[in-house]
Amino acid sequence: MKKITCKGFKAAGVAAGLKKHGGKDLGLIFSEVPATVAGVFTKNLIQAAPVVLDRERIASGLCQAVVVNSGNANCCTGEQGLAAAKATAACTAAELGIAEDHVLISSTGVIGQPLPVEKIEAAVPDLVQSLHPDGFNDLAEAIMTTDTFPKVLRIEETVEGKTFTIVGVAKGAGMIRPDMATMLCFVCSDIQADHRLLGKMLRIATDRSFNRITIDGDTSTNDTILLMANGSSGLSIDSDEHTKVFQQALDTLLIDLAKLVVKDGEGATKLVEVVVRGARTKEDADRMASTIANSNLVKTAFFGEDANWGRILGAAGRSGVPVIPDKIDVYFDDVMMVKNGVGCGIEAESKATQVLKKAEFTLTVDLNMGTAAHGIFTCDFSVDYVKINADYRS
Amino acid sequence: MKKITCKGFKAAGVAAGLKKHGGKDLGLIFSEVPATVAGVFTKNLIQAAPVVLDRERIASGLCQAVVVNSGNANCCTGEQGLAAAKATAACTAAELGIAEDHVLISSTGVIGQPLPVEKIEAAVPDLVQSLHPDGFNDLAEAIMTTDTFPKVLRIEETVEGKTFTIVGVAKGAGMIRPDMATMLCFVCSDIQADHRLLGKMLRIATDRSFNRITIDGDTSTNDTILLMANGSSGLSIDSDEHTKVFQQALDTLLIDLAKLVVKDGEGATKLVEVVVRGARTKEDADRMASTIANSNLVKTAFFGEDANWGRILGAAGRSGVPVIPDKIDVYFDDVMMVKNGVGCGIEAESKATQVLKKAEFTLTVDLNMGTAAHGIFTCDFSVDYVKINADYRS
Repeated sequence: MKKITCKGFKAAGVAAGLKKHGGKDLGLIFSEVPATVAGVFTKNLIQAAPVVLDRERIASGLCQAVVVNSGNANCCTGEQGLAAAKATAACTAAELGIAEDHVLISSTGVIGQPLPVEKIEAAVPDLVQSLHPDGFNDLAEAIMTTDTFPKVLRIEETVEGKTFTIVGVAKGAGMIRPDMATMLCFVCSDIQADHRLLGKMLRIATDRSFNRITIDGDTSTNDTILLMANGSSGLSIDSDEHTKVFQQALDTLLIDLAKLVVKDGEGATKLVEVVVRGARTKEDADRMASTIANSNLVKTAFFGEDANWGRILGAAGRSGVPVIPDKIDVYFDDVMMVKNGVGCGIEAESKATQVLKKAEFTLTVDLNMGTAAHGIFTCDFSVDYVKINADYRS
Repeated sequence: MKKITCKGFKAAGVAAGLKKHGGKDLGLIFSEVPATVAGVFTKNLIQAAPVVLDRERIASGLCQAVVVNSGNANCCTGEQGLAAAKATAACTAAELGIAEDHVLISSTGVIGQPLPVEKIEAAVPDLVQSLHPDGFNDLAEAIMTTDTFPKVLRIEETVEGKTFTIVGVAKGAGMIRPDMATMLCFVCSDIQADHRLLGKMLRIATDRSFNRITIDGDTSTNDTILLMANGSSGLSIDSDEHTKVFQQALDTLLIDLAKLVVKDGEGATKLVEVVVRGARTKEDADRMASTIANSNLVKTAFFGEDANWGRILGAAGRSGVPVIPDKIDVYFDDVMMVKNGVGCGIEAESKATQVLKKAEFTLTVDLNMGTAAHGIFTCDFSVDYVKINADYRS
C-alpha cells in the first residue's frame, strides 16, 4: 500500500468487536496540535447522536481528534445514545491527554441499536497505541461498512514555493445521493486556515463533489464531512492566490473521493456521469440530471448494458423541468443516440451498446434550450444491490 | 375464468406479432352505441403519440372504441409515430364501420422504436371478428407487458332498484408511482353520464387509487386511464344519490385494480400499505408516505423480511416533512417497533419479523404532531426487479 501521510497528523484503525463478522471497526485521527475544523452534516431531520454532538462541538472551530466507529450508527438511540457518544469521546480524550471538547466522533452502521460503548472503551488504549503517521489506510479500513475497498487519497500542492498536503479518507457505499449520504469523509491538511474560511471552502468543494453523486437516492442520518487544518506545513492561507490553490486541491481531492464512493456503490459495476446541458438554468440541469441518475429503470438498463434511451427520456420528462421534446438530443460518450427527440437508429444503438460495455462512460442529455449544464455521478443498479440490502442486518 | 360482461360492450384480444415472444398483443373495446368518455393521462412531459392523439379526440366527450397494443410504446417516434397512431385508429374505425374520431388508442412497451403499423392493420379484421361480450379477459391479456397475470374486475351496484355495472381492465407493472405510470386502465360502464361529470368522478377515483401506488418511482410516457359510459343499463346519473353510489363503486373498482397492479409489481413478493398518520396536513402525510414507499433501502428490507426500522426513519427524515424525532412511533401491523423515536427492543423486533413474513401488511408511521393521515401502496424490491429490467429489451 502507498504511504499516506500529512504533517502533524497520525491515524489508526483497530478491531473493537463492533462488526458482526470481525475486522477493523474503530478508527482515530489525531493532530499533534489543536487544528481548526469545519464540517458539513446530513440534511436528514433524523440525526444520529454523533452528528448532534459534533454540531455542538464544532462551533468552537477547534478539534484535535476524531474517533469513528463502524458497525453501529448510534442513531435513534435516544438519551442513552447521546451518552454513549459522549463517553466514546471522553475516554479517547483521556487516553490522548487532550481536552474532551476537542474530540469529534462519527458512527456508521445499523440504525437503532444501542452502541456497545464498553467495547469501544476497552479498545481505545490499543487504538491510541496504534496511532501512526502512516495510519490512514488502517483508518479507511476501520470505517468501511459495505464498501469493498478502502478509500484514501493524498494531494500535494505548491504555492509560492511552499508545499502543503491534503489527505482524505471516505466511506460509501449505500444511502448516497446529492445532499449527502452515510458517507463519512475526513480530510486533514497541514495548512493553516481560519475555521470560517475552511467552512466556506468545504461547502464549495462538497457541492462540487459529494453533492454530485448518487447511488440509491437515500440519504443517511449520519453523513459527515470534516476538514481539519493544523498548520504543520508552516503555510497559511492568507491571500487570494493561496485560497484559490487550496480550493482547487480540495475540490480535486473530494471529487476523486466522491467518484471512488460511486464506483464502490453497493453492487455497482459501472461509473456513469449523467450530464444535462443546453438547459435554461443550472438548477434545471441539476434537477433533471439527478432524476435520471436516480431512476431505477435507467440504472438497471446500465447494469444490463442496454442503450434504452426511452427510459432516459422518460425520466427526463418526469423531472419537472420544462422540455421541448422534439429538441432533445442524447449521447452515450460521443455516440448520438437521439436527435430531436427521435432515435438515431440501429447503427447508433449498436455503437452505444459498445459504450455501455465500458466501466466508465458519460450520458449526455442536451435540451437545446439554453446554455446551462450540470453533471451527476451515478452507478448502475445490479442484482447485488438488492442482495446486499436485503441481507444487510442478517 | 369468470365471465366478465358489461351491457352494450364487447372486447377482444389477439396476437398481431408485436411482442417479441409471441402472445396476444392487440386489444379492442367496442361499445354498440357511442359512449361518453373521460380520461386521465400521464403528467410526464414526454408523451407518446397515442396520448397526444387521445388528448385531442377526447375533447368531444364521445368514443365508441379503444384499440390498444402492447410490445411497443409508440413514444419518441416523431411524426411517423403520430401517423402510425392515426393509421391504427383509422383502420379499426373502417373495420367497425364507425367514425374515426370516435376511436381512441393506447400503446405500451418499449419506447423509441417505430410502431409496425402494417402488422396491426393485418390483424385488425381478426380483432374485430373476435369481439365478444365476454372478451375482457382476452383484452386484459393483450395489454400485458411484464405483468404476470391479467387484471380484470367487475362490480355491480343497485341504486333505487336499478342495476349498473362497471368493468375495469388494467396493466402494470413497472414505472408505477403516484401521478401514474405505464399503467393502462380501461373502464366501461353501462350507466349514462355526462362526460364532464365522468371526468370529475374519474379524477377523484384516480386520486384515491392509482395515485396512491408506487412500484419503482418512475412515471411512464404512456399512462392512460379511460372511462366510458354507454347508457345501456337504462340508468342515468341524474341525482346526488346516483353520483354518490357510482363514485363509491368506481373508487372500489379502481382501488382494487391498483392494488392488483402493485401486487404484480415487477419482481414483487409483498404488498405493503405505508401509512403516515398524526401528520399536520394530508400533504405532509402523503409526501412522507411516498418517500418511504419509494425508498430502495426500505423496499429491499421488505424483500429481506428485515424489520429494519432505521431505514424507515431515515427515509422519513429526508422526506422534507418537519418532524419531532423523539415523538415518532412506528408499527408493523399492530406491532409497535419504535416508541418516541427509539426501538422497542428484541421482542418487538421478533414479532415484527413475523408480520414481514406475510404477503400483505401495513407499515404505520405516527408522527404524533397532528391528525392528518395518508396511505400509499407499495411492494418490495427484489432481485427479480433488477433481472427483469436489466433484460427487458433483450
